[in-house]
Formats: sequence, C-alpha cells, structure tokens
Amino acid sequence: MPFPADLINGYRRYAGERLPEERGRLAQLAKLGQAPRAMVIGCCDSRAAPETVFSTRPGELFVVRNVANIVPPYAPDDAHHSTSAAIEFAVRELMVPDIVVLGHSLCGGIAAYLKGRQLEEIRGDFIGPWIDLLSGSQSEAEATDKDLADADMQRAVEEVVVRRSLKNLTTFPFVREKVEAGEVTLHGAHFGIATGELRILDPETGRFEAVAPAEDA
Amino acid sequence: MPFPADLINGYRRYAGERLPEERGRLAQLAKLGQAPRAMVIGCCDSRAAPETVFSTRPGELFVVRNVANIVPPYAPDDAHHSTSAAIEFAVRELMVPDIVVLGHSLCGGIAAYLKGRQLEEIRGDFIGPWIDLLSGSQSEAEATDKDLADADMQRAVEEVVVRRSLKNLTTFPFVREKVEAGEVTLHGAHFGIATGELRILDPETGRFEAVAPAEDA
Amino acid sequence: MPFPADLINGYRRYAGERLPEERGRLAQLAKLGQAPRAMVIGCCDSRAAPETVFSTRPGELFVVRNVANIVPPYAPDDAHHSTSAAIEFAVRELMVPDIVVLGHSLCGGIAAYLKGRQLEEIRGDFIGPWIDLLSGSQSEAEATDKDLADADMQRAVEEVVVRRSLKNLTTFPFVREKVEAGEVTLHGAHFGIATGELRILDPETGRFEAVAPAEDA
Amino acid sequence: MPFPADLINGYRRYAGERLPEERGRLAQLAKLGQAPRAMVIGCCDSRAAPETVFSTRPGELFVVRNVANIVPPYAPDDAHHSTSAAIEFAVRELMVPDIVVLGHSLCGGIAAYLKGRQLEEIRGDFIGPWIDLLSGSQSEAEATDKDLADADMQRAVEEVVVRRSLKNLTTFPFVREKVEAGEVTLHGAHFGIATGELRILDPETGRFEAVAPAEDA
Repeated sequence: MPFPADLINGYRRYAGERLPEERGRLAQLAKLGQAPRAMVIGCCDSRAAPETVFSTRPGELFVVRNVANIVPPYAPDDAHHSTSAAIEFAVRELMVPDIVVLGHSLCGGIAAYLKGRQLEEIRGDFIGPWIDLLSGSQSEAEATDKDLADADMQRAVEEVVVRRSLKNLTTFPFVREKVEAGEVTLHGAHFGIATGELRILDPETGRFEAVAPAEDA
Repeated sequence: MPFPADLINGYRRYAGERLPEERGRLAQLAKLGQAPRAMVIGCCDSRAAPETVFSTRPGELFVVRNVANIVPPYAPDDAHHSTSAAIEFAVRELMVPDIVVLGHSLCGGIAAYLKGRQLEEIRGDFIGPWIDLLSGSQSEAEATDKDLADADMQRAVEEVVVRRSLKNLTTFPFVREKVEAGEVTLHGAHFGIATGELRILDPETGRFEAVAPAEDA
Repeated sequence: MPFPADLINGYRRYAGERLPEERGRLAQLAKLGQAPRAMVIGCCDSRAAPETVFSTRPGELFVVRNVANIVPPYAPDDAHHSTSAAIEFAVRELMVPDIVVLGHSLCGGIAAYLKGRQLEEIRGDFIGPWIDLLSGSQSEAEATDKDLADADMQRAVEEVVVRRSLKNLTTFPFVREKVEAGEVTLHGAHFGIATGELRILDPETGRFEAVAPAEDA
Repeated sequence: MPFPADLINGYRRYAGERLPEERGRLAQLAKLGQAPRAMVIGCCDSRAAPETVFSTRPGELFVVRNVANIVPPYAPDDAHHSTSAAIEFAVRELMVPDIVVLGHSLCGGIAAYLKGRQLEEIRGDFIGPWIDLLSGSQSEAEATDKDLADADMQRAVEEVVVRRSLKNLTTFPFVREKVEAGEVTLHGAHFGIATGELRILDPETGRFEAVAPAEDA
C-alpha cells in the first residue's frame, strides 16, 4: 500500500510554503542542536496539537503526547517508561525551564474512564491499565462539587487530570530539585476544542482562567 | 511563576490568525468527535512536529510522541504502557486506517544510544531503560553496511529504528489482524532536520526515498 | 572610583525581579549554548535598545551595535573589523536565519554627517572616518525627493542608511550565498524614539511601513 | 520573506505593555536629546544584554557591542574603526562620566581564540583578525595561575580581556585626559550566564567580586 497521498501533498505544501521561511532556522538548529524553551505534555488527540495551539516554530517545544496527557507517578524500575523517559530527557539533557501539562476538552481517554469500561474486551490489553492511572479522579472532582452534570463532570475530571499530572511531576526527584531551585516551573492549561479557548491554571486559586484577549493585557 | 508570556502571545496569535479559519471545523469535530485519518508515532524532538511536516489541520493526525519514536514489542501486563495504550486506542477505538512511524535526523535519543551511555548518572532512572529498546540496532545497521562513518551510522540507526517500530507494531495482535485484513496500513518515513527533506520507506526495496517535488512545486 | 551605585541597584533589581523567571532558561542556554533566532545590527544610541523594542528574552538576539547602525562594505584585509567580524560570527558560527538592520530617529551619527562636520577637532580621530561611510547618502535621499525639510532630510537619510547597510550585507560572500540559498533573510526597520513607533521596510515598495496593531493582523 | 512574526509580536508586546510607561520619557529624550549616564562596551552574545543585566530604561546606557567586548588599542588611521568611533562619540560628543566594560562567561569569541583556530576556513575573513586582538591573553592568564583547568582558563581569559579593554581605553588620548581630570571613570564587570551572577572588578585588588545582594533583596 503506497504512502497516503494526502500526507505526501501535505508535505509538499509544507516544503513549498513553510519550509522556505524556516530553512535557515532548521539549518541552524541542525548545527547547534535544540534548546527548546518548554516541554509540553499533551494528549494524542488529533484536535489538540500543542504546536498549533501555541503557534510555535521548530525548536521551541519538546512534546510528549500520550492518551489523556498523563504523567505517571515516579516509579523507577526495569520497565520501559515512555513518558517518564521523555520527562527525564527534557529536564536533565535539555534543561527545559518550563513544563506545561496541556489538557483538553472531550478527551476520549477520560470519557472511557468515566464510562467505567470494565469489560475486558473494551479495556483491551493496554488501555485499561493506562486509564487506571486516572483512578480516583472522579471522586476528586466530586469532592469539590457534588452535583456535576455529565458534561461538567467530564470537564471537571479533565482539570483534575492536569492537576494530578503536575502533582506527579513533583514526585520525580530531578524535577522537584529543579523546581525548588527555581530552574524549572510547572504550568497547567486546558484547551477547549469546540471554541478554541485556552484556559490557564492559576496557581493561586487553583482554577483554570481563560486567556484574556491581547488588549486587556 | 506566571505562565510563559511568549506562549500566551503564541496562543493569541493562533486565536487571532488561525482559529477564525478553523472555528467551524473545530465545532464540527467537537460535536461529531475525532476520526483521524492516520496515527503518527513520532519523536518528542522540538524540530520534528508531525503536524508541521504534513501541514495537517485539526482532526487529521492522532499523534503519540516519545523519545526516538519507539514502538516497544507487544508485552501486555499490569504495567502502564503509554505508547502501547495509544496504539491500542488508535487502532481499536479510533480505527485509524494508516499508521506512520516518523523518524528524524539528529535524534538525541539515538545519539545517546550510540554514545553507549552506560554510566548510571547518564542513564538516569528512565532514559537508560527506555534507550535499551534500541539494543542491537547498531549491529543491525552494520549488517547492511560494514563501513559506516559516524554521521552515516546515526542516520542508518535512525532508519533501523523506524523499521523496528514498524516490525514491533505487527507483534500487536489487534494490529496484525487489521493489517492482514487490509484495514490498517503501516508506513515509515524519515524527516531531515537540516534540509527539511522527507524520505519515505519503500516497502518494496526497504529503502527510504525522498519525496519527489510536486510538478508545480 | 566605585562602580556606579545606580547600576548596582539596577543589577539587584534584575537579580530580584527578572532573574528568578529566567534562571532556568539561562542555565539551559549555558549548557546547550546560544542559537539566536536573529542578528540585529543597531545603533549605540541609549534610546534604541533592540531587546527593549522587540521584548526579547536571553538567547534570542545576537546584537552588534555601532554608531548609526552601519554595515561597512565587504573589505577583507589585516585590519580589525569589529562589525564585519560580528556579522561573520553570526552567519558562519551561529547560523542566524534572519538579520535585522534597525535604524532609529534622531540618530546623532547621521546628524553629525548632515551637519557636514569637516573641522578636524570635530571629526576627531575616528568619528570622521567612520561617518565617511555615510558619504553620498544625502544625495541618495534627495534623488528620491528634491525638497526635503531638515527634519525630513534626517529621517530620509536614516532610511537610506538602513537600505545601504542591507545592500552592503549582500557584498559579503558568506551572506550572499546564504541569502540566495534561502537560509538567511535580510530585514530593515526604523524605530521612532519620540513616539515608540516601529516601521518596517517593505521589500516590495522599498518603503517603511508602520507595524499595524495586533487586531488588524 | 516577511519580517519575522515573533519579532513583530514582540514589538506589539512592547507597544502594549512597556511603551505606555515610557512614552513621556521617550518624548523628553527625543526633544532634549540623549545624555546617557554611562557607556557600556559589551559582547554581541544573545545571553548578555547590558540593558537587561542593569535593568536600565531608555536614555541610560550608550552601548557598543562587538565579539568578545574588545577595545582595540588606539590606532588612528584612515580605516573605519567601529568600536573606536563609538568610544570617541561617547566621550567627546556625549561626555559619558562612566565607561563599563562588561565581559561574560561562555564567550564564543574567547572560546574560539582558546581553541586556537588557525585554519583559514575557520578564521574566515574577519573573525581571525578580530580575535588576533586577544593574542597573548592566555599567557597573561597563566602568568597569574599556572595550573588552570579548561573551564577556569576560559573564565580567566574572559577576565583578562576585560582588564585589557580597560587598559586599551587609556591609550586613547581623549579618554586618558578625562580620566586624569576625573571626568571619566572606567569600570570592569563580568556576567555569569549560567547563574546570572554579576561580578565587579575591584580596582584595589584587581579581582572580580560578586555583587552583594541588597539587604532586602
């Protein structure tokens, strides 16, 4: 089966339209190496690409993406930890000054968790164990608000998951040390797919606040 | 510490320039859900964002990114497998018809593997075990060409890793079944950061061939 | 004589207010090295600092500043060429993808040139020969507009000097090659001190146009 | 190729956030002209902007920047001396009372000199001759300390270069006269990129001492 024609055309469009503007920057980044200004831990969802939401250019964001933008708790062992390895690479090798956990609305992984899919054929081989990392986040959401409608619950859990991932990041010794030294800062955000609204986690209030339009800045 | 001002401004640029063009598409994707036309397994590298290379819009690519675009072999257990869970979600829940493993030049993870970083302090807690998934890829590269210069070796191993990830994908029963049923097709590609060149793995020859420019490109 | 107290206090303000936010980025840039996204050739004038005008952070702009933001013509010899060496370092060593010549209003060097200071004691040992690089720019300005008032003449020559510096940049073989290869792009801009207005040289029209406010973008 | 979007947005940030606070000061400086309280001779390095390190506002610092913050010896001739012209302009025209030579860590120009880049293709057309101004500074550093590790040597030479630039300043008659008349004071400083530490040259001891934090800092 040949390579998808639409992707080839998409590359040609990139090569014809965007690459000319970035040829020099890419050559520079190839010679000098990357020094990304931030790491983003996002979801695989096709509607929430970090580079799109933040209008970034090559070299700016080191991005790990998994189902439901989850950061597992620190658990070093012989297993192959994809997300934890990426975090360690970003913090120790690339010394990123900022880490952003980017959640988003309508997250399929979180929806699956909320639907409590316990049937083996649905949990599958890996989705179930992965989603188990979300255990308890529903009650965490209910703790703050008892009477949540379904849509509100989904949104509330999405926010809980961002807070949890940030909390789990601090369980990594090499992250915590740099956070305490002021060399790494942790941030949370939530992207609303239906409207394109970005809301940022306010460390003071612990709430997600919409980004004010430029003129209000 | 406040949310990075440059990322906020990047979002404002997105909201002012690109969002207006995609508002309708996003609203549609929010209501009907995503049905990505392909899954891309790429690297976290800040210089190789799949959405950029393929000029895709929201809803098109379901993207998992880890260090060195690795697909581990099928190994179901109680552990939390980030990449495997994403693959299962893409294939079983989203039924993507195509899966693209996108490698790239100057991969830091592969460079670390080639430098044979065995010292604990460099292997860290997670980078070492993760990179162990690359074990043997150097000799695999040498098998096809004995006299590789360093730069060539890096490139050769990058190609081996793409082939390996594709091979490992077929160790997942739910992937193999659909591949055999013609419902899923696997593809390999390699992005050259210095030049922006995309090379596609030819299943016939097993070699990576540069994408021919469009007639009018 | 002790170090100026106001500068020490300024540093303490930096150390107390801005450094905390930049600590991580600086540590990263120290380990990975700089890869500035642009070179700016500006004037020494105390009222036209490039980092201020473009709100840039550490690592973004490689800046050479001399009297009247002049780029001399390519003239390799045994002499010590400060500006030419900086340009070569930026283009060959740091591979900056963009070079911006930033002129500004009320330029003292250009005013000196226009006042035709021929008396030795005013030309001094170095100002005179340096300003001689501006020779002919007045008639160049008059060529496009015969009846310029003094203020207009100053402004017109400031613009001519930016155009000239851009033209001289292309006399450097290592710049011209990269410009032709699309790896380096040259840009001109003019900062108005009295109003803080930035005007950008439009390569099409050859005229300087004010930057439109965000909402018009 | 259009003007870089990120720089345009950076200017808009300046225009929206900082300009309003400085509009009055800029209008004043435009009418009355600049009277900078000091000249800074710094490096082009993107990580060591004088205005940032000293938290200065428009009108305060007259800044010349070249590779490795070098002041060449006084050598009046017909050549175009960028740095010397800036010094003469600052001292004779603007009568700055203080001149600060600001060195910094990890200086690429000094690293190039220490690597003894003699090959023509690396010396290039201008970098080599410019760096030749550093000749002998390594042995000068070794004279004070025989057993310097590489990192220490880089730091030691950076300090030697600051002392040399200060010494060369006194070879300019118009500088020496004013220094002797107590109308101009020369100062040396060194900025540490990794930590943001500023160290000031103590004229008594000839050593660089860290700036003590403000009591309340």
